[in-house]
Amino acid sequence: MNVFKKPVVYAVVIALLTDFGTKDYFVAAMKGVILSINPNAVVVDITHEVPPQDVWTGAFVLKSVYKWFPRGTIFVAVVDPGVGTERAPLLLQTRNYFFVGPDNGVLSLAAQEDGVVAAYRIEARLPRVSRTFHGRDVFAPAAAYLSLGISPSMLGAPMGQWKRLEAPRAEYREGALYAHTIYVDRFGNVYTSATEEDVRQLASPGDVLCVEGPATIRARYVEAYGYASPGETVALINSEGYLELAISMGNAAATYGLKPGQAIKIRRC
Amino acid sequence: MNVFKKPVVYAVVIALLTDFGTKDYFVAAMKGVILSINPNAVVVDITHEVPPQDVWTGAFVLKSVYKWFPRGTIFVAVVDPGVGTERAPLLLQTRNYFFVGPDNGVLSLAAQEDGVVAAYRIEARLPRVSRTFHGRDVFAPAAAYLSLGISPSMLGAPMGQWKRLEAPRAEYREGALYAHTIYVDRFGNVYTSATEEDVRQLASPGDVLCVEGPATIRARYVEAYGYASPGETVALINSEGYLELAISMGNAAATYGLKPGQAIKIRRC
Amino acid sequence: MNVFKKPVVYAVVIALLTDFGTKDYFVAAMKGVILSINPNAVVVDITHEVPPQDVWTGAFVLKSVYKWFPRGTIFVAVVDPGVGTERAPLLLQTRNYFFVGPDNGVLSLAAQEDGVVAAYRIEARLPRVSRTFHGRDVFAPAAAYLSLGISPSMLGAPMGQWKRLEAPRAEYREGALYAHTIYVDRFGNVYTSATEEDVRQLASPGDVLCVEGPATIRARYVEAYGYASPGETVALINSEGYLELAISMGNAAATYGLKPGQAIKIRRC
Repeated sequence: MNVFKKPVVYAVVIALLTDFGTKDYFVAAMKGVILSINPNAVVVDITHEVPPQDVWTGAFVLKSVYKWFPRGTIFVAVVDPGVGTERAPLLLQTRNYFFVGPDNGVLSLAAQEDGVVAAYRIEARLPRVSRTFHGRDVFAPAAAYLSLGISPSMLGAPMGQWKRLEAPRAEYREGALYAHTIYVDRFGNVYTSATEEDVRQLASPGDVLCVEGPATIRARYVEAYGYASPGETVALINSEGYLELAISMGNAAATYGLKPGQAIKIRRC
Repeated sequence: MNVFKKPVVYAVVIALLTDFGTKDYFVAAMKGVILSINPNAVVVDITHEVPPQDVWTGAFVLKSVYKWFPRGTIFVAVVDPGVGTERAPLLLQTRNYFFVGPDNGVLSLAAQEDGVVAAYRIEARLPRVSRTFHGRDVFAPAAAYLSLGISPSMLGAPMGQWKRLEAPRAEYREGALYAHTIYVDRFGNVYTSATEEDVRQLASPGDVLCVEGPATIRARYVEAYGYASPGETVALINSEGYLELAISMGNAAATYGLKPGQAIKIRRC
Repeated sequence: MNVFKKPVVYAVVIALLTDFGTKDYFVAAMKGVILSINPNAVVVDITHEVPPQDVWTGAFVLKSVYKWFPRGTIFVAVVDPGVGTERAPLLLQTRNYFFVGPDNGVLSLAAQEDGVVAAYRIEARLPRVSRTFHGRDVFAPAAAYLSLGISPSMLGAPMGQWKRLEAPRAEYREGALYAHTIYVDRFGNVYTSATEEDVRQLASPGDVLCVEGPATIRARYVEAYGYASPGETVALINSEGYLELAISMGNAAATYGLKPGQAIKIRRC
């Protein structure tokens, strides 16, 4: 008996990612709309704490998580500084999923990785649409109709161009990796754009890395958090495959003044 | 084919609003009780971040969101400074919904808007009831029994009087609107009690509004956030139909020292 | 008709408790994995705001809430400073529930109270396992397989020893209770290790208690929050059966500098 066998039948999951926070009624209104249209939808929160209007972070979080969801999951990502203007409401059908949200790049990292099959400009919406809350009035209903099995082509017209963000990279040159910080998690761990493959060119677990950027950091390269002494700064390949800077029982971002988007140079000390 | 057709059959949703926060076990205990009684209930969080014991904000959030949920949804709202004293546990049946919570007004704005059909003092409860946690011991079970189809009259006795809060209003006088701030959302946007209809008496999109209150504010009246320049203060009719003060890419409440309940005077500059 | 009758049939609930926070994609990845394996699982959040790596608080929250969930609920608790090292992934079968998480004590307070029937070292996992994210790669799949009805013995080998934390106690000596602070909730209410039975030895409702510790506190012993005047410090037996220090409309922990783990002495003034 193979306990890892994945069942072929699944309920339709609608997964939500926004910068709406959780103190207001915004996310709940989206859920109410979804459940009004499809009471059998399984609604899951990814996060609603994307920093306000930070499209990059929203795109990165979505890219990090989408692949763990069942095939057929419908992702709704609303980080939308341009709500109410001419930016299109976008529906991307990929090899395994659907992505719904504003056409500002927030869907692009995940959708491109999975492989885009078709793109639509969403035209379906609730009868009375506010200018400021497309999450509730446009994106939630589109996701709910998709979850009922309605064809994406019923919800809008094909769209040729849509906005793409570029996935982060690192460059190896003369014994050093030129990379960027790309994400800070709740523990203050700092993701860099260097991958396991990148790092293999200059160091092995046990080596000490010197990282130059807003601060100069010495970090022992380890295999897991558990191998660090309390207070020690370490570097490790994290669960997403990126080189991460962390302080055991501490906060690397706060300690070293790191935030997403900073240029760093990594070498073996 | 009408993609907007709403299905007539729906699962029973129980939607929760509290000031319990999410760091403790309080909300989870309510969900455990609900799922123990009705494992098929669909439990949805509205928010648990109502400021502690702020009945008005709880009532306002509930009023803003209830109508987006499927007919038959059971709302449980627990913001309850008087827990353990003589205030009644209240069940309001309205035209389309049920509302469960303490009789302190937290249910009243939403329930009155939908139209109250019957009111009951809840008498059903868990066998062993604590004096401090009616959310778990009284309100969650009442909602769960309702979700099983049990008649509200089985859960308590009819109640003649129950506490009502008054919905916010604005007054137009000599070219100005006399209103109040009523809500601050996660983005620092400030809701006023002036509605689209109120504002129509003194301004059109494109005009500049002068708002006097704790601070003096000049705000361009626009149709959507997306039309504001970064850092610009704007006023717009928000998704709830209220005039809202906002700073593009900024926080209006923090910038101008605004919080709910302040008197303001609005006119065209 | 007995409205309190509990149905015998129930859906399988998987309840999650972590220190992952909600701003990242960590919890959502666990949910995606669970729903990929069992799309019919009912996933409930207990909390994800356990202070980072605070195993004691995680264990205490789990103990406070587990018993309100339906029999058969599978609890996944991930507060795991030792992830990636040799600490075992643990599955405890108790009289009514399953508990899944690292073998560092986080499961122990709840599991021991319910009565442990069998313990397993989890060996099943996703095909590709990261060293840093066992919540997603080991614990979520184990819970999901259990929810499908797979026998715990299929998921790992029996385990003789596993780590136990001790439940908090108070000692009565010469007219005083020697106890500890054990938990601070979102309202700043401070739980002590003294139970209702302990307190009965020295005071009755209406008495004033003197609490000595980091601060000296006078607290009227009342039956419920609602009996306190605004700003008054009170002591009461809370919903978990512990003596709790609270300030009506205020924050006792902040006011008196209290946090979990402090020794206190309680007597009648």
